[in-house]
Amino acid sequence: MTTEPTTEALPGGYHTADFTKPDGRSLTLYGLQPVRVDSEIPSPSPDPVDARPLMRWHPVRGEWVMYAAHRMGRTFLPPPEYNPLAPTRDPAHPTELPRGEYDIAVFDNRFPSLTLTAPDPEPGPAGTRAGVGKCEVVVFSQSAQGRLCDLTDEQISLLLAVWADRTTRLAETGQINAVLPFENRGVEVGVTLHHPHGQIYAYDHVPPVAARAAAQMDAYVAEHGRPWLEDFIQEERAAEDRIIRDDGAALSVVPPFARYTYETWVLPTRPVSLLSDLSDAERHSMARVLRDALRRLDGLFGVRMPYLLTVHQAPLDTPRPAFPLHIEIYPYLRAPGRLKFLAGTEQGAGEFANDKFPEVAAAELRAVPDTAGDGL
Amino acid sequence: MTTEPTTEALPGGYHTADFTKPDGRSLTLYGLQPVRVDSEIPSPSPDPVDARPLMRWHPVRGEWVMYAAHRMGRTFLPPPEYNPLAPTRDPAHPTELPRGEYDIAVFDNRFPSLTLTAPDPEPGPAGTRAGVGKCEVVVFSQSAQGRLCDLTDEQISLLLAVWADRTTRLAETGQINAVLPFENRGVEVGVTLHHPHGQIYAYDHVPPVAARAAAQMDAYVAEHGRPWLEDFIQEERAAEDRIIRDDGAALSVVPPFARYTYETWVLPTRPVSLLSDLSDAERHSMARVLRDALRRLDGLFGVRMPYLLTVHQAPLDTPRPAFPLHIEIYPYLRAPGRLKFLAGTEQGAGEFANDKFPEVAAAELRAVPDTAGDGL
Repeated sequence: MTTEPTTEALPGGYHTADFTKPDGRSLTLYGLQPVRVDSEIPSPSPDPVDARPLMRWHPVRGEWVMYAAHRMGRTFLPPPEYNPLAPTRDPAHPTELPRGEYDIAVFDNRFPSLTLTAPDPEPGPAGTRAGVGKCEVVVFSQSAQGRLCDLTDEQISLLLAVWADRTTRLAETGQINAVLPFENRGVEVGVTLHHPHGQIYAYDHVPPVAARAAAQMDAYVAEHGRPWLEDFIQEERAAEDRIIRDDGAALSVVPPFARYTYETWVLPTRPVSLLSDLSDAERHSMARVLRDALRRLDGLFGVRMPYLLTVHQAPLDTPRPAFPLHIEIYPYLRAPGRLKFLAGTEQGAGEFANDKFPEVAAAELRAVPDTAGDGL
Repeated sequence: MTTEPTTEALPGGYHTADFTKPDGRSLTLYGLQPVRVDSEIPSPSPDPVDARPLMRWHPVRGEWVMYAAHRMGRTFLPPPEYNPLAPTRDPAHPTELPRGEYDIAVFDNRFPSLTLTAPDPEPGPAGTRAGVGKCEVVVFSQSAQGRLCDLTDEQISLLLAVWADRTTRLAETGQINAVLPFENRGVEVGVTLHHPHGQIYAYDHVPPVAARAAAQMDAYVAEHGRPWLEDFIQEERAAEDRIIRDDGAALSVVPPFARYTYETWVLPTRPVSLLSDLSDAERHSMARVLRDALRRLDGLFGVRMPYLLTVHQAPLDTPRPAFPLHIEIYPYLRAPGRLKFLAGTEQGAGEFANDKFPEVAAAELRAVPDTAGDGL
């Protein structure tokens, strides 16, 4: 069967369509071309998600901890014949996605750490409350084999627009104050599904990393009279030695304060606080630089670099013009076969020790040939 | 040869003696009995340590990052015939430690991320400064095979006294404002030397985790009129279900806000802010509870549990009576063979997602038989 959904236009000329899964979860498909669906909208199980996540306050660290006891049974390295993120081939074994024409899919996580409908928990320790928020899965491609950096520049530009659209929609719920898109890649760091995908965590509060960044950036403006990003871009362009690629409207850099050996930031060169503030040209430039950065990381040692990619946007609680939208990539290899682990100083003190200067790491990344990671 | 050092008495009836290594680094030996040295004081290399660590300011996270480019060549899984932490057998292949009578040894890390003599760095990016601090290695035992929890209660009590003594001495330099003793164990999490040992990082500033804790604890006293620890101990004793072992002057507990599945805290039940504030009886009680907690973690799945153990003491910059001295143990296995990795929400937002309630984890740890981890 073929379903012709009501395709809506997104800024940038993209297309999107919304669906509801049999278990009640939402699904949104996005495409460079109009979206078309050629099968029923599936779900691995027809049972409604029974998620009762809660949060407890950590009084010493001053942060929330999320508890989701229903997550323990979640999918872990399934056999190759079952990939929940591939389009459904056999209706007797439904996956999360239908067959059809689309590039990127977003759906509610079946094992969420946070939900918009989390009930008030039973009385418990002081500082216990409902785990209000939202956890989404973002499938980057219908192909199970590729990498994020195997997408075209246009498809990565669409992904940036998808992340922006999710942020806007989550803000519109009125319940969300911070949105964190991320990709965690590599069996070395516990990734359970190899189909290229990411996640979005949306919080009803401003978590510590974003709160700290917002405060730091506000203080910078107060002290210097201009946003931090303006000075940063100017200093990095003047120094040159830490920039990996400068595309004009966006650039990639190993920041002078990199915590991971090959830590790479991808930033627009104009201060904007949300993905939705980017112009089409800026988004395209970000996409080119991001794809280039990820390909260099794979080419560096000739292996798929395990990494965490996080998209840092301003908290939504109040306008935050000083907050610089940027992407941070933490590559976990510090040398071939040698993972960076977080030990005493990183976890116990909150401060990283890095064995290589960012200038050296950036030179190595600039020297990676264009084709070094092909076919990984 | 036999060296009879000037053995000094430590509080608690312990013994200690100071030495200088051929390369200029310091070595202190500690014993339940008077210390005796039966060989030259060795060093793996006679060359002075050429450490020029520096720090750079991370303007978005608001924290320092340490750079120590000389660390890249540091020891990694040496062959079994060379263990730098064992007493020197063959003077032609010196280790870090002499032969003799002692229980615990402390020496300056040969690959420090911070030193008290770090020179001012060459001009660099804004926010660059000397990496002032100190990195020490603490060898828990002369035996390469054992575990921390294979020590006797008396030896663990000595270790707590050693950590206290190091903290006091570091404070006396006038250059140190925070001291973090820790043990990182498990090849799964990148540990390079299997001889039971830990490290101490001493900072010239107050790092973010300690600063945040100090601020939280001050705010708690301001709001509630009593230290947080008092309420915490009372609530946990009333609830009972998260306590692993209550020894009176100290107890172990999976805190209600545990971030790691089997996270275990070991605390004195009286609010004290530094290890050196503990009475002898309290230190002995802490030692019994700590040994018990570590043995349960190994017995839980019948494998040496990879873990990070950090000792949280008050920052030294100013008296901090509200800061609760405690030990946090982060066990990295959340189920047999399944490591906890820090992914998007943990690293990108600073908030943990935990799949098991602390009450359930504590019940599992209480149910571990006394002998479950024997011989691991």
